[in-house]
Amino acid sequence: MKLGRRLAVEGAGTAWLVFAGCATTALNASPPSQGFNVFEMAAAFGLALTLANYAAARAASAHFNPAVTIGYAFSGRFPVRDTGPYLAAQTIGAVLGAALLLRVASARPGFSIAASDLGSNGYDDHSPTGYALAAVFLLELSATFVFVLFHLLMSSTVARRKTAALAVGACLAAIYLIAIPVSNGGANPARSTGPALFVGEWALDQLWLFWAAPLLGGAAAGVIYRLGSRRSRICSTSSRDGV
Amino acid sequence: MKLGRRLAVEGAGTAWLVFAGCATTALNASPPSQGFNVFEMAAAFGLALTLANYAAARAASAHFNPAVTIGYAFSGRFPVRDTGPYLAAQTIGAVLGAALLLRVASARPGFSIAASDLGSNGYDDHSPTGYALAAVFLLELSATFVFVLFHLLMSSTVARRKTAALAVGACLAAIYLIAIPVSNGGANPARSTGPALFVGEWALDQLWLFWAAPLLGGAAAGVIYRLGSRRSRICSTSSRDGV
Amino acid sequence: MKLGRRLAVEGAGTAWLVFAGCATTALNASPPSQGFNVFEMAAAFGLALTLANYAAARAASAHFNPAVTIGYAFSGRFPVRDTGPYLAAQTIGAVLGAALLLRVASARPGFSIAASDLGSNGYDDHSPTGYALAAVFLLELSATFVFVLFHLLMSSTVARRKTAALAVGACLAAIYLIAIPVSNGGANPARSTGPALFVGEWALDQLWLFWAAPLLGGAAAGVIYRLGSRRSRICSTSSRDGV
Amino acid sequence: MKLGRRLAVEGAGTAWLVFAGCATTALNASPPSQGFNVFEMAAAFGLALTLANYAAARAASAHFNPAVTIGYAFSGRFPVRDTGPYLAAQTIGAVLGAALLLRVASARPGFSIAASDLGSNGYDDHSPTGYALAAVFLLELSATFVFVLFHLLMSSTVARRKTAALAVGACLAAIYLIAIPVSNGGANPARSTGPALFVGEWALDQLWLFWAAPLLGGAAAGVIYRLGSRRSRICSTSSRDGV
Repeated sequence: MKLGRRLAVEGAGTAWLVFAGCATTALNASPPSQGFNVFEMAAAFGLALTLANYAAARAASAHFNPAVTIGYAFSGRFPVRDTGPYLAAQTIGAVLGAALLLRVASARPGFSIAASDLGSNGYDDHSPTGYALAAVFLLELSATFVFVLFHLLMSSTVARRKTAALAVGACLAAIYLIAIPVSNGGANPARSTGPALFVGEWALDQLWLFWAAPLLGGAAAGVIYRLGSRRSRICSTSSRDGV
Repeated sequence: MKLGRRLAVEGAGTAWLVFAGCATTALNASPPSQGFNVFEMAAAFGLALTLANYAAARAASAHFNPAVTIGYAFSGRFPVRDTGPYLAAQTIGAVLGAALLLRVASARPGFSIAASDLGSNGYDDHSPTGYALAAVFLLELSATFVFVLFHLLMSSTVARRKTAALAVGACLAAIYLIAIPVSNGGANPARSTGPALFVGEWALDQLWLFWAAPLLGGAAAGVIYRLGSRRSRICSTSSRDGV
Repeated sequence: MKLGRRLAVEGAGTAWLVFAGCATTALNASPPSQGFNVFEMAAAFGLALTLANYAAARAASAHFNPAVTIGYAFSGRFPVRDTGPYLAAQTIGAVLGAALLLRVASARPGFSIAASDLGSNGYDDHSPTGYALAAVFLLELSATFVFVLFHLLMSSTVARRKTAALAVGACLAAIYLIAIPVSNGGANPARSTGPALFVGEWALDQLWLFWAAPLLGGAAAGVIYRLGSRRSRICSTSSRDGV
Repeated sequence: MKLGRRLAVEGAGTAWLVFAGCATTALNASPPSQGFNVFEMAAAFGLALTLANYAAARAASAHFNPAVTIGYAFSGRFPVRDTGPYLAAQTIGAVLGAALLLRVASARPGFSIAASDLGSNGYDDHSPTGYALAAVFLLELSATFVFVLFHLLMSSTVARRKTAALAVGACLAAIYLIAIPVSNGGANPARSTGPALFVGEWALDQLWLFWAAPLLGGAAAGVIYRLGSRRSRICSTSSRDGV
């Protein structure tokens, strides 16, 4: 598939992911407030990613997440020259998704951008349950590492690719069940950037962490995957998916 | 399959969808009241659609939703002459489903049609969390656009049709997670019409929006799909589901 | 497979279904009390049935439910002479499941059989939200009709049997999302009998309804299925699962 | 696959299972407190196991649970000499997972190891809803028996292995829906050991039960499976997955 078309898919998918995922917290003003409706928000992000993967129907080159793109680039399974365009398309998509979300959310009586953070990520005072910077960094790095390594594994053989769309979305949901009370669920720099641009102030000040930690985690996953698959290629050739 | 039999399936499936989906809000009078039990209602609608699709076992011609039928007609993949009968069967089915629901719900002590809206859709004062007309219109249009485009994609190749029943239901659940706090979850004019006929008054007054916005969204999805698939047919022939 | 072995599977599966499903309400004394933790209880019953179907690995002859057995008998796809033994095995299994549940539940400080109904079904004062007899009868009959018809459909072709275990459990979950606030979720006379035997009094007095309505619904589904499949065999032969 | 590599997979998978599963209770300090957020915690453990199984891609020899390993050894389908190394790798992995969890959790203001039990298992005063020793023992034994028997069944034929990853995770979720209010969800001695080492005191005093009951249940499942499959091999040869 041509790069232009793939970039359009990346942008549209990331816009959908940010809109659908953050909507569960940004559009609903009912009592179980920010940071508490964890299951619903995790399910929405996971579902949205699975559906975007179904629609794209390409297990290895539909990312919707800069950390995934960096991980594939480091693993040697994605052309380095496409990395920049992918990151740009993802970020632009995320901003458009957040813009649509803000347009809808601001029509609720009593809405204020200060009270509703549109699902932005944060640490210290802006962590849903008050986690400090170091813990948020560690968790974002670890969670992204697990997610990207899983993504690389699930697209590595024909048999695995059949369940990859479902499995990758389920993995995002699992990671968000862990991360939402801590950081409001990041592990995706584009997803963090979208709402932060509109919330401004603290959200922009803290945005660096939600690029740095996930990209480090994704890059580490790519390197580990490359080392692991090289060793297994040396030891044996066809045992990957057998017993 | 003969048209008569397909219409019976459309009617039965839409009756089931409206009954099962709206029951989660109409039959349960427990504290997490109207507009707040979002996850459960979204899950019920999604499950009900997936099950109706499994029972019908036809990915491309089981719709249970006028906006989907319009979308398929605009995409060129559904005979225009069947559109009217489909819309009629869906609407009649939805009314029968809502009638059965009202019959059961009204047996609860203290039930009143005014207090329980049977899961009707609304804007302004009748939006679960008070969203204004313009925001509800924008959200219904966008959500239906995404849903119908996804429906068209998932029935477009043999490989995708295998997971279409599950994926289309999951997409409805995702869209309802977003839309329930805003409009009580529409994106389906027949589903909106069923309860509104029995609730009357405001529900009938506001029903126009839940036909206009979804049909516009569905038609737009059909047009975009047609343009996209024409271009991809020109560029290449078999690359659709590959990497 | 020999009848003796199939009966052992029916008994074990129904014991597991009753134990796992009713445990979510009987073992947890936390605030979201009886009749309110709808989603969790519906999910537990649906999951338990899907897992029992996976373990049995026979789509058409693993029932775990007298209404399903009656439906298959009326549809002409199950030997009438096996109906009695199946119903007996299911009921005995359900009683054993409820006995194990009571054994665990009664170890909680402050437990009383009167306060915890072990997940028994009831109407009027014993409906979780107070539904009257007629509405409970109508709902149990309708829900069982849908469930048994769906069960018959999902085991009717080789293609459908592949997803039958998952789909039938999902259908039970959907029906329970509707029925739990009304009747505490029946549609299965064996499941109703298990807890009722230990709760006694009102639960035994009201048990007749949870045999009569589901068996009527199941029999009706069997008859409708038989008529529908006969007509479709006359009209055409291979169009069942095509478009 | 070489034993060393399989042990690394066991360790990594068990670390992930303990971290992801216990995080839902240990990292979230919001009101629905310990023992009450049952569905979310059960879903997290089930999801985490399914994802670990997908990543390992071996239905019969990826266990992440000493009780499963013992069950496979007793069933005659796992080399007895590998049992010790497997149990060691699982326990070390679980301790590392719990260590990472403690590192993140302790960064929340107001965190104390005494108040948050990191998802440890317990009975009597340390059961989430106060269940006595005998009931907890009975439930842990029964739940592990069901889980390990199901695990053995789902890896017993090629057809079943295709859904084993999903089904085994779903079975863990079902068992945890039952067990979390009673024991906080065990059925896996490694998972119980990880948090207990850091919580100390009562958690270590009570740890014996969460080794004894699951290992007994797992061993019983292995023996029953062996007897059942021997009989079925004598009676017939190919009827296992047919009708």
